[in-house]
Parts: sequence; structure tokens; C-alpha cells
Amino acid sequence: MKIAILLYDNFTALDAVGPYEMLARLPGAEVVFTAARPGPVRTDLGSLALTADAALADLSAADLLLVPGGPGMARLMDDDQTLEWIRRVDTTTTWTTSVCSGSLLLAAAGLLHGRRATSHWICLDQLRLFGAVPVEQRAVFDGKYATAAGVSAGIDLALELAGRIAGDDVARQIQLVSEYDPQPPYTAGSLRTAPARLAELLRANDLAVTAG
Amino acid sequence: MKIAILLYDNFTALDAVGPYEMLARLPGAEVVFTAARPGPVRTDLGSLALTADAALADLSAADLLLVPGGPGMARLMDDDQTLEWIRRVDTTTTWTTSVCSGSLLLAAAGLLHGRRATSHWICLDQLRLFGAVPVEQRAVFDGKYATAAGVSAGIDLALELAGRIAGDDVARQIQLVSEYDPQPPYTAGSLRTAPARLAELLRANDLAVTAG
Repeated sequence: MKIAILLYDNFTALDAVGPYEMLARLPGAEVVFTAARPGPVRTDLGSLALTADAALADLSAADLLLVPGGPGMARLMDDDQTLEWIRRVDTTTTWTTSVCSGSLLLAAAGLLHGRRATSHWICLDQLRLFGAVPVEQRAVFDGKYATAAGVSAGIDLALELAGRIAGDDVARQIQLVSEYDPQPPYTAGSLRTAPARLAELLRANDLAVTAG
Repeated sequence: MKIAILLYDNFTALDAVGPYEMLARLPGAEVVFTAARPGPVRTDLGSLALTADAALADLSAADLLLVPGGPGMARLMDDDQTLEWIRRVDTTTTWTTSVCSGSLLLAAAGLLHGRRATSHWICLDQLRLFGAVPVEQRAVFDGKYATAAGVSAGIDLALELAGRIAGDDVARQIQLVSEYDPQPPYTAGSLRTAPARLAELLRANDLAVTAG
């Protein structure tokens, strides 16, 4: 099973690495990090780079495509090379997936028209601009399209995918290996549970520039 | 605030990137990924490399040190260069921290003697070999030493650290930015909650070789 993960300048690290840690443990999984050019790709916070082992031109098919989010995706919303690559790989996938604002790239590529999808809360409504139906939910499945909410939601999405791909027991094994028994010390992880003033503060500071 | 994250061949990606995503968002944080040699460092699953921007020799002080786990740590348990570096940086830190089997490296460096600490469930008992007191808990604080359980537990540890370093409100903001409102689709993330046969299976397959 070939899994392609798209990297681009200023993506958000955990959007890619959370699902990677789960999906790469699937039996027979072969993961390929792919970017415009092979080599190190800097994440949004500047102090980390992940290596892309393949160029977009080197990879035209995958069983599962994952597009992470991050402030850098804004620059790709009208980048023909990237959108065309997403469309081409999508014609070969069993699953086309995204984390965070990565769903806006799938939408910009025309793949989510008329479909239910989610994204980071800060940009969820923008899905409408591309004819998608925004759903405020941690993970949304519509046919072969699976989208996750912000950043850390990719871990939950990936475990759900692992179960659908390889069965519940394999997914549970992956969960136990990665000791994914979350116990956040705070309860501010969603608009539902965070103090309203924090969301206002983040919106005022144009979170879109700093997180994806 | 300088944060040093140690990288080494065959570390577990999420051990480092989970906490990174939280801690790098602290006001004034400067994160430096550090390894024996600068350049790409391959993770345990093979298909991902993170870039180390500094060599161990280039970095001798930090406010916070984070040591991730992973199968590759076994090779470092008697590596004088690495253990000496950990000890040296530790003399300068406000917080010395680990995720997963990274605590065994702190222990091998002699830093956890007589202290309460945790680790991945598969190797928790090994902490005793170095005079530490194993505690089956998601995150354990003992003085300036903060250790997390397996892989994904580093996210919870980092949020707790963020709160202690910059206050509850900053930690909550980081949680909301990264939409850390976990909703795992399964409940097999700990020995407490997973079917016993799964843990037996993983022990039989020598999980220590494949996860950290």
C-alpha cells in the first residue's frame, strides 16, 4: 500500500507526522514524502525541516494521499503544478485525505465539490467557496474523501482510516504501540470547550498566518 | 528560551514532533534540533527524515532539553558522546524532559537516580536498572525532570510544560491553535484499556525493535 504525503514550504509538522506515525505502521505500508523538489522542506515554525524523498514529478499514483495544512498552503491555492498533481494522484487513490487547512487544497483542486468536509476551525467556512459543505467535526468521511480538523485531529483520522483499511484489531495495535491514550491537561482544544476570548484573540492575531 | 531536541538514527518521529508542535509556539521559543552530525536523521519507520540543524558539539546549553525515544536509543545506552552531552546540557536546563524510551537515555546518563519517572509501557520496568522509580502515568514530574509515556504522550507532557513555563492561558491558546481535542476512534491506547491479547502480541513480536 503506497501512501503519498505532500510537503510544501510552511506546512504544519504535526499535520503530517501525526497521521504518518499511525499509517506507516499499517502492514505493507510504503510511505513517500513528496514535494515540488526532493530535499528538506521547512515547516511553518521555521526550526524544523522534513525530508521529501520524491519530487511531485516522480510520483503519479498512490493508494492513499494525505495533504497536510499550514500557512504555506495559501501560496498553493492557485499553483497549477500542485493542484494538477493532487488531481492526478486522486484518480489513482482508494483514499484521498487531508488534515487541517489541507482540505482547502483538496477543495481548490475541485475534489470536494458537493461533499461534506472539515478543516481547522479558523478556516472551516472557506470550504464553501469551493462548493464543499463544511462540517464541524473531528474527522469527516464522504466517499473516499476523509478530512480532519486542525493539526492534531490528523491522528484520530488516521486511526479511523487504519481501522477501515486493515481492520479494528490492527488499528487498536497501532494505538497501543503509540500509547495514544490522550489526557490533555487542559480542555481548550475546540471552539466548544475553549474560553471564547481565546478564540477571539487568535482570530484577531490572524492565526491563519501562524498555524494550519 | 532555547529548546534543544535530540535526534538520532531510528528515533520515533511523533516523540519529537508532538512536543515540538506545542513548545515551539511558546512566546520567545527558539528550538534547535541537534544530532551527532547536522543533516537529515532517519526515523525508525524508515520513510521519514528530520533535519538536525546543529551538531552536539555546537550546542552545550539549553533552557529545555527534550530526548525522544525509539528503537535507536538502544545503541546510545553506552555511547559516551551522547550521554556526556545530555549530562552537560542538563547542568544548564530549567527542564530536562523525555518522551517514551527517551527516559532510559536520561536514566543511563545518571540523571534519574532516585527519581520518579515514566516511559513506554514496554520498557517502563527497565528504569529500575538505573535506580529510577517507574511510575505508570502519562506524564511524571520530579523536580526539573519531566518524562512522558509512549510516543503520543509527549503532546500531553508538552502542554503541561507550556502551562508551567508560560501560564495556563498560553497553554490553552496552544491547545486551541493545534485543535487538541482528542477523540480516538478506539480505546486501546493503554495497558489499562487495550485487550490483554494485543499487549501480549506486541510483547511477543518484540515491540522494542519497532517502536519507542
